[in-house]
Amino acid sequence: MNKRLKRALPLREVYRFLETGPVVLLTTARQGRANVMAMSWHTMMEFEPPLIGCVVSERDHSFAALKATRECVINIPTAGLLPQTVACGNCSGARVDKFAEFGLTPLPASKVAAPLVAECPVNVECRVVDTRFVKFYDFFVLEAVKAWIDGRGPGPGRWRKLDTIHHMGMGKFMVAGRTVATGSRMP
Amino acid sequence: MNKRLKRALPLREVYRFLETGPVVLLTTARQGRANVMAMSWHTMMEFEPPLIGCVVSERDHSFAALKATRECVINIPTAGLLPQTVACGNCSGARVDKFAEFGLTPLPASKVAAPLVAECPVNVECRVVDTRFVKFYDFFVLEAVKAWIDGRGPGPGRWRKLDTIHHMGMGKFMVAGRTVATGSRMP
Repeated sequence: MNKRLKRALPLREVYRFLETGPVVLLTTARQGRANVMAMSWHTMMEFEPPLIGCVVSERDHSFAALKATRECVINIPTAGLLPQTVACGNCSGARVDKFAEFGLTPLPASKVAAPLVAECPVNVECRVVDTRFVKFYDFFVLEAVKAWIDGRGPGPGRWRKLDTIHHMGMGKFMVAGRTVATGSRMP
Repeated sequence: MNKRLKRALPLREVYRFLETGPVVLLTTARQGRANVMAMSWHTMMEFEPPLIGCVVSERDHSFAALKATRECVINIPTAGLLPQTVACGNCSGARVDKFAEFGLTPLPASKVAAPLVAECPVNVECRVVDTRFVKFYDFFVLEAVKAWIDGRGPGPGRWRKLDTIHHMGMGKFMVAGRTVATGSRMP
């Protein structure tokens, strides 16, 4: 059991963690059963309230739960969780309880039924707000309704570097490297 | 003038370069005038033909050109181009010829009027194929119609690590770090 304390992350800061393109673990829950999948096809669509577009394929076991419950959590794993992240991507929740199988800890969320993954340092509770592109592209628009960050380290509003993992395809991943401060005026 | 040779990148490999979430330089051309903007809000939506969803804000000077011409090029800069990338993000093409101002070299594309940025090692020529979400989210769906990769280094089909840059907001960027090979069966 992971006992790290989570604290609230202001919703306006969610984009800072998603815009770099990390692999995320998407959790859903339906009829008392939670599932988790690995996902890289996501993008920010609005700052505040934060909107996130993502592709969850009809072939994914999570698709039906996401469509029916209209709720999920986006969890951001770091390099130490790469084996579990890959394992989640290599099997289906139709056959495996991935939390039990891969030692991931579900924590209750505050606004949605889907669980947080305790081991992930950032968790974003989301509601599905637009399904018009699902029939064309399996593309869901999510609104972040509550976000969490590990209690250790710098607080919200402070810059935080995570060693996120980034999918390059064919078994290869890039781990976040050095950071550079610039004079960019982009938010 | 940058004289590196470009060679064709198979369209089915485009996702390997975009899925990690790099900042890209989006070029457009309208009435003989090219422009370039920095963009981080993009996601893959389909492997083949490659579909890419992206947010280009109505406030961006590129919006009108993208909407009118339905063509663009996604260029992927690497760490050496961070100053130029930040500069592109900090000013508007309404007032500045960014190619001239920041020393970027436009090269003719093969299927679209928008130019390639010669200094970027990967360039993806795109056509807009769906504008139904533009009025709600400034969200365009692009299809990659031709892609290029620098002639130096390993060829298409071989794994290629680029030191891409990833936007963390508020002037901070992450540069791609180490790569890890895993047993992932995800494409």
